[in-house]
Amino acid sequence: MERPFDEELKLLREKILEMASYAEESIALAIKCLMERREEYAAEVMQREEKINGLEIEIDDLCMKTLALRQPMATDLRFITSAMKISSDLERIGDQAVNIIENSVELLKYPLLKPLIDIPRMSGLAQNMVRDAINAFVVGDDQLARSVCKGDDQVDQLNDQIFRELLTYMIQDGSTITRAVGLILIGRHLERIADHATNIGEDVIYMVKGQIIKHHCDDRPPKI
Amino acid sequence: MERPFDEELKLLREKILEMASYAEESIALAIKCLMERREEYAAEVMQREEKINGLEIEIDDLCMKTLALRQPMATDLRFITSAMKISSDLERIGDQAVNIIENSVELLKYPLLKPLIDIPRMSGLAQNMVRDAINAFVVGDDQLARSVCKGDDQVDQLNDQIFRELLTYMIQDGSTITRAVGLILIGRHLERIADHATNIGEDVIYMVKGQIIKHHCDDRPPKI
Repeated sequence: MERPFDEELKLLREKILEMASYAEESIALAIKCLMERREEYAAEVMQREEKINGLEIEIDDLCMKTLALRQPMATDLRFITSAMKISSDLERIGDQAVNIIENSVELLKYPLLKPLIDIPRMSGLAQNMVRDAINAFVVGDDQLARSVCKGDDQVDQLNDQIFRELLTYMIQDGSTITRAVGLILIGRHLERIADHATNIGEDVIYMVKGQIIKHHCDDRPPKI
Repeated sequence: MERPFDEELKLLREKILEMASYAEESIALAIKCLMERREEYAAEVMQREEKINGLEIEIDDLCMKTLALRQPMATDLRFITSAMKISSDLERIGDQAVNIIENSVELLKYPLLKPLIDIPRMSGLAQNMVRDAINAFVVGDDQLARSVCKGDDQVDQLNDQIFRELLTYMIQDGSTITRAVGLILIGRHLERIADHATNIGEDVIYMVKGQIIKHHCDDRPPKI
């Protein structure tokens, strides 16, 4: 049955999808800048950052209006509060992409330290996590959301590996320090992106099942 | 006039205050571990982390129940959605304190790199920002919240200074690399804490004035 505010929920879903695709593109472009050594991607990331920021405000407005005017209950209420949280995570993912492009542009001043293999892998994983988390939200798929949360360990492991490897580089050859620190920071930013995707996954599970799995409270019963 | 759900709002305020004081203590203890070179603070930070995580779930439950049962409007609605966002920022501040204590414990394996002056200063600033942001929330003081947002630049500057100084150390003497990277990461975590405090400040301004200042949209009129 079509309800009075299905229209608003549809719009909310579309805005979140739009925001997520800008966020994903930003990560891809930031890593492309690093890999292809081309500074011009920076402007593209900054453009998306602005769009993401604008969408966060739009989504927040839409959620507040829907809460105030429709006074939703149960599943709809959880959908709206989840959308607010998810948009805040997407905005922070956009910020991390900006951090990556800043570090990448800085690294272009120096010759390549080493062929980069783990960083683009890590970036691919993080982008997939963001995409899956948002798809899980849009279709209300808690199984897909759970798989996102599991992906986080893989990204953490890759980040630890990158960190240790770069530390070894620096210790063996002091001339690599500035570049190695730049890459370590990029690894950290990707790790943070995966954390935000995990937060989104947790919010989706709560939305679908009314079950909070944050902080491993897997067995909590639904509260509303 | 006392309203039916003033009790819930009072409880919400108390829970946020409790969570914030654990978060602040965690930052202080994590930096104390680094400064006094005593590992035993780690257990105290982990205890607070658990309490913070539990409180985030409690606050989320309380907000969802209040939204569902009381269907608040205008200021009250903004108060509740702000509380949800603020508790999520406080939880992430707790996570950053855990990151700091992990780096600090790791650093205890090595002799002190240099007398630490800027890191405790930065930590003090970040703690003050968290305290002021939460006080601004509790009393609904948008001027105090604005001052928190301004403090962020100072923390960013200190972090840049620490970063550049430690990079110089590493380049001059390779034996300092592991320790310098550890301190750089602690600087980053403190910077993230200040970012979260700034987010809280922005939420408070929105709550009080109905005005979104995120992404510098200072002149937006209230929407609800």
